[in-house]
Amino acid sequence: MATLCKPSVSVPEHVITMEETLEFAERVHAGKPQLPLALRLIRNTGVRKRHIVQPIEQTLRHPGFEERNRIYERESKKRCPGVIEEALTNAGLVAHDIDVIIYVSCTGFLMPSLTAWLINTMGFRSDTRQIPIAQLGCAAGGAAINRAHDFCMAYPESNVLIVSCELCSLCYQPGDDGVGSLLSDGLFGDAVAAAVVRGSGGTGMALERNASYLIPNTEEWISYAVRATGFHFQLDRRVPGTMEPLAPVLRELATDHGWDIRNLDFYIIHAGGPRILDDLSKFLGVDRSMFRYSWTTLSEYGNIASAVVLDALRRLFEDDAAAPGATGIVAGFGPGITAEMAVGRWTAGLPAAAELDLAHAVGNPIS
Amino acid sequence: MATLCKPSVSVPEHVITMEETLEFAERVHAGKPQLPLALRLIRNTGVRKRHIVQPIEQTLRHPGFEERNRIYERESKKRCPGVIEEALTNAGLVAHDIDVIIYVSCTGFLMPSLTAWLINTMGFRSDTRQIPIAQLGCAAGGAAINRAHDFCMAYPESNVLIVSCELCSLCYQPGDDGVGSLLSDGLFGDAVAAAVVRGSGGTGMALERNASYLIPNTEEWISYAVRATGFHFQLDRRVPGTMEPLAPVLRELATDHGWDIRNLDFYIIHAGGPRILDDLSKFLGVDRSMFRYSWTTLSEYGNIASAVVLDALRRLFEDDAAAPGATGIVAGFGPGITAEMAVGRWTAGLPAAAELDLAHAVGNPIS
Repeated sequence: MATLCKPSVSVPEHVITMEETLEFAERVHAGKPQLPLALRLIRNTGVRKRHIVQPIEQTLRHPGFEERNRIYERESKKRCPGVIEEALTNAGLVAHDIDVIIYVSCTGFLMPSLTAWLINTMGFRSDTRQIPIAQLGCAAGGAAINRAHDFCMAYPESNVLIVSCELCSLCYQPGDDGVGSLLSDGLFGDAVAAAVVRGSGGTGMALERNASYLIPNTEEWISYAVRATGFHFQLDRRVPGTMEPLAPVLRELATDHGWDIRNLDFYIIHAGGPRILDDLSKFLGVDRSMFRYSWTTLSEYGNIASAVVLDALRRLFEDDAAAPGATGIVAGFGPGITAEMAVGRWTAGLPAAAELDLAHAVGNPIS
Repeated sequence: MATLCKPSVSVPEHVITMEETLEFAERVHAGKPQLPLALRLIRNTGVRKRHIVQPIEQTLRHPGFEERNRIYERESKKRCPGVIEEALTNAGLVAHDIDVIIYVSCTGFLMPSLTAWLINTMGFRSDTRQIPIAQLGCAAGGAAINRAHDFCMAYPESNVLIVSCELCSLCYQPGDDGVGSLLSDGLFGDAVAAAVVRGSGGTGMALERNASYLIPNTEEWISYAVRATGFHFQLDRRVPGTMEPLAPVLRELATDHGWDIRNLDFYIIHAGGPRILDDLSKFLGVDRSMFRYSWTTLSEYGNIASAVVLDALRRLFEDDAAAPGATGIVAGFGPGITAEMAVGRWTAGLPAAAELDLAHAVGNPIS
């Protein structure tokens, strides 16, 4: 049974509050007719603060796509190893135990992917499989969990490391001033997250079934325009309405598993924005408070893209709220419009430290 | 048993011969001291001709990254559906039978990936899983085969569609004139390929075991510089020497499977360049002629990146050279430096047409 262990999440040291966001927006876009609507939408996000990899003055300057990507490389190399080490510790494993690294990130582009550098510098085996995914956006966190689950079904003794590196502030485009762009400028935050899916053992969410879904003919609703200035995030006004078609898909996944979507014990939902969370609780008939971890991620960090589901899951772990056998769902949403969903049950394996001691004892029978 | 069925490959209608390549290089880079060496290296590639998506005069102009990416989108949408239809027919399946699309392409960047458009326009199911990979370069063809194999191990009745869309001519950078860049300008070609891995049934290579390998500390040997002008391919002079460390890895994979790498019946090897193929046959102790399908791909199409292994495999199918039970290996190499390898045995299932008839008869008992 593949178990999604406790994620590790790190947010950068630079903070921008909602008040500062509103001030900057008013200053930079003063007098534009779309500004009042954009400010209202930003206020409605409920994003109290966000964390970003550079001071705000630097963030607002566009130094060119090449330099942006260089900053992405520098910051990802600086920030990923720490969360990876912690995620390994959370799972009671070391780098050498990992068989696959799934690296998801849509906010910078390296070839080779950061996976090669991580393997070379962090002690992963040379035969570690690399699955870098850049084109699933916010849905990539859920996709990574699901592909890790699939891999552990194929090789039940394997371990998969998921790394999500989303430095959204490096996609800020000063020249984009449509309402969707201005809203995005106030919504997205930076974060780096990692988690291990263990093929056997471990404490966390035992993954039992997963599914993907593409809402037909919505491929242009969330997209990047790729330009000399880099990736330009484009958000259609119809996106907040997508929970109506997706709620039945989540319900069906639970039903196929013999569960009632209204009565699960935990819900780890992509906090794309407040409307996403509000609508989904309404259409599923689930109390708003059941999405509290996602609400807190949104309020504290903003929409941190593919890292949202890992951060919300971390908060569930830290809340110590799931008892063994508790049923739950993870759902990530992103461009496509794509949903990546998984259902599973809380499982408490041996504590990691005890496992390690046991492994050492077995490996060294003389001691 | 996951079976890799016959690939479909399409190359564009515009052709550039080696003579034309040499003429253009001499004209564009006249007088540069590195030119004679670059011309000699291009002559040594043995690439007789390549196919490209635009006429040569257009290919040599750089219209900007945004326009380049727009051409990538237009051309991939024009060229992928045909090869996908043919690959499905080769496997005796229709779009609705596919559970996963693995789309590999390092020569353009779309978000959402082309997978969303393919699902919307070609009749794939809305619950088709999408695995877009842009950052494994030439190794992505082998990686796609291996991840498809893994998925079919997890879900034995599933079917995975692999699509490789490599429009390398859209990464031509007129300003890059280092020896590695000039050589690349004469080496890479455009192609679109697709193949299905069937979880059960089908004729082709039954995938039995796969492996990945990263040569330590070579992550900068093949890379992209990401600039306002797009992706700039960077090739280190040490790359042609990488078969010495990789040959033992291929040998070990065969040995782990109880086979002798010297005595397999077929070899489908990434035709990165002539030195790669020459060295690998030398270090493995395998006759050069055993790599004939890869040599032909190189000579007729150039290095078509992740599509090479699919094209070489297509040639094996068309040569009708593998008898049931024949043993073989597929190996793709790319940035990292990463090798993605698979061993398997030729299997002849029911002919696709007969299977389809059978399926229809079962599905419609009254007829």
